[in-house]
Amino acid sequence: MITSYLIAVEEPPLSVSGRNDASDQLSADQPVGVGPSVADLLGVLSYGALVAFDNLSVDARLAPDLRRRAALSEMAAAELVHYRRLADRLTELGADPVEAMTPFVASLDAYHESTRPRDWLEGLVKAYVGDGIADDFYREVAARLAEPDRTLVLEVLHDDRHTGFAVAEVRAAVEVDPTLAGRLGLWARRLVAEAVTQAQLVVAARPALVALVEPFESSGPAGLAALIDRLTAGHTARLNALGLKT
Amino acid sequence: MITSYLIAVEEPPLSVSGRNDASDQLSADQPVGVGPSVADLLGVLSYGALVAFDNLSVDARLAPDLRRRAALSEMAAAELVHYRRLADRLTELGADPVEAMTPFVASLDAYHESTRPRDWLEGLVKAYVGDGIADDFYREVAARLAEPDRTLVLEVLHDDRHTGFAVAEVRAAVEVDPTLAGRLGLWARRLVAEAVTQAQLVVAARPALVALVEPFESSGPAGLAALIDRLTAGHTARLNALGLKT
Repeated sequence: MITSYLIAVEEPPLSVSGRNDASDQLSADQPVGVGPSVADLLGVLSYGALVAFDNLSVDARLAPDLRRRAALSEMAAAELVHYRRLADRLTELGADPVEAMTPFVASLDAYHESTRPRDWLEGLVKAYVGDGIADDFYREVAARLAEPDRTLVLEVLHDDRHTGFAVAEVRAAVEVDPTLAGRLGLWARRLVAEAVTQAQLVVAARPALVALVEPFESSGPAGLAALIDRLTAGHTARLNALGLKT
Repeated sequence: MITSYLIAVEEPPLSVSGRNDASDQLSADQPVGVGPSVADLLGVLSYGALVAFDNLSVDARLAPDLRRRAALSEMAAAELVHYRRLADRLTELGADPVEAMTPFVASLDAYHESTRPRDWLEGLVKAYVGDGIADDFYREVAARLAEPDRTLVLEVLHDDRHTGFAVAEVRAAVEVDPTLAGRLGLWARRLVAEAVTQAQLVVAARPALVALVEPFESSGPAGLAALIDRLTAGHTARLNALGLKT
């Protein structure tokens, strides 16, 4: 999923809008896995899937041939299947999917606007590296959710049928033209920087989301540091898999 | 499916390219339902599904709100499911899906380039009216195919979960602004004219496809006239359903 935000939150930000109504207030005894934070998480993932569909279908048109265009179109369509599962769960919880997504439209759109791939390879690096770090983060959060949302989020994020395609394409291109390793490596660094900026805006817009991040913080600075270490290690592994400079 | 071509073929056109190799030659004793014509039919439907995915995902960005954008994105994703089924069948038949689609890329792209919707409503009319007449035609052809291709094509074409959405949207808009009935009615007429032009190019590129149309012709001018009557009746019914002028 292209949902690259919420990478690291060092402290719960203050509300920056009028959205911080009573239902958004965090309380120390609110269990993780219920309440507005779950609807927010499913909402941000739903919009992430919808916008990933949108971006991958645009990127498909950058494909150098019909075979690759079909492959990326299938990746795009898979995002819509994720969207449908998440939206159905929101409906089941009594939430309106469109309302749940709306708070995240501006910040996710801003991330994607600021990271429009200029060519086929940039699109693949974005789908693999940008989404990869976000997916790792959400997997960590999902491990703390109550069922059935835990399994739902993990299944949606675990759909990595298509990552092999991105890796093979980028590796092959870098082998032919080793100067790509530097250019695409820089691109990957920019993706992460933009994602962190937008993550802060996402959390500012929906303070309830912080409830899902807090377990890391309540285990102290060591818990948060360990999380960031794990995310960084995953990111580095992906860059290596692509043959890019870290 | 957005596969608006092959509407009416009055006589088998001569080959206009070097593609008319031995496997494309028609013979009087070639049964309908096997041979190159079936691979061609599945090929044109496959590319039609891929390009429909492409167009609907672009049109989704014309949506006036997130709810409608999600609805059209789901229609787009459904086309990819059709594409996958058709491509799998081609592979099963020993044909390469990309090779089977390639002869149809230029003419289908030309149709879609010449009928780019300028707004949300034009996109819906194109998806409902333009695809509707093509789908009706393919349903007639499919009825003469051998199994399992007959069922496959009919199932792919019968996926009308989303037509209700287009009808409701256009009807509601025309009720609010009756002048739309004239403008969108003209648009529908242009779609059909462009589709007929491209249909002739499609068949010229792949004479083997004519084998699938011939049963109508071999039943004489009355058979072809009856087919055109049925297609026209379906087209008129769709325009009426939308509240457009015929």
